[in-house]
Amino acid sequence: MILDDDGIELLDEPACRSLLARTRFGRVGVTVGALPVIVPVNYIVDGDDVVFATRTGTKLRAAVRQAIVAFQIDAVDEHARAGWSVLAIGPCEEVTEPEEREALLGRLDPFARWRDHVVRMHPDLLSGRRIAPPVAAVAD
Amino acid sequence: MILDDDGIELLDEPACRSLLARTRFGRVGVTVGALPVIVPVNYIVDGDDVVFATRTGTKLRAAVRQAIVAFQIDAVDEHARAGWSVLAIGPCEEVTEPEEREALLGRLDPFARWRDHVVRMHPDLLSGRRIAPPVAAVAD
Repeated sequence: MILDDDGIELLDEPACRSLLARTRFGRVGVTVGALPVIVPVNYIVDGDDVVFATRTGTKLRAAVRQAIVAFQIDAVDEHARAGWSVLAIGPCEEVTEPEEREALLGRLDPFARWRDHVVRMHPDLLSGRRIAPPVAAVAD
Repeated sequence: MILDDDGIELLDEPACRSLLARTRFGRVGVTVGALPVIVPVNYIVDGDDVVFATRTGTKLRAAVRQAIVAFQIDAVDEHARAGWSVLAIGPCEEVTEPEEREALLGRLDPFARWRDHVVRMHPDLLSGRRIAPPVAAVAD
């Protein structure tokens, strides 16, 4: 087990990818008009990429206009004082090829209705951390 | 009920503040070396401010070096297809007055050990959204 300076377990890339594949809800971090913004999205993993849907708005505009966004997932058990988080950083692009777009939208099934743009984010940087409870181990 | 362009309910400021006061775990969004980053933190509300602890590192450095950070909380029930999120944006400063710092650290009780810097973030912008399930109302 590798620990960071805070004594927190660092997750390796396979562990990060496994958590990404098992989760459906995350957050996109972008800068909009010089202000940092965090926007919740539901998502799927397609190959190595994170794919989410959006309507014309902050996330899509950021994805199209900016090279790089952050994508984050986490889970916390406050009672057990345990949790994990995974952070991916990488470039985005809108999926415009009609068949690919329809297939991804079908898999996405977004919470919010009327989202018809599909954004693919490629994690160039992937990191994760896990805080275990003081005594017992966290179930994986 | 006010809806945004996606048909999602917009939460007013009192609703956002109530959710902030009832939650203990959130995420800070900053730009580090031109890259967007999202870092999980536990936090408390002190007056109108969000207060979190950190050790020398990304969050604190960003808070000290940058004027503005994003702070986000959310909760999602994937089964019910419901959830809410609150986003605060504002300036940060490190709390250096010893008594105030100790008092806040005592209330914070961070998950991670050895965090001894206290950062106070003042939400200048506060917004929130809630997605209700298609039929039943979300319990508040």
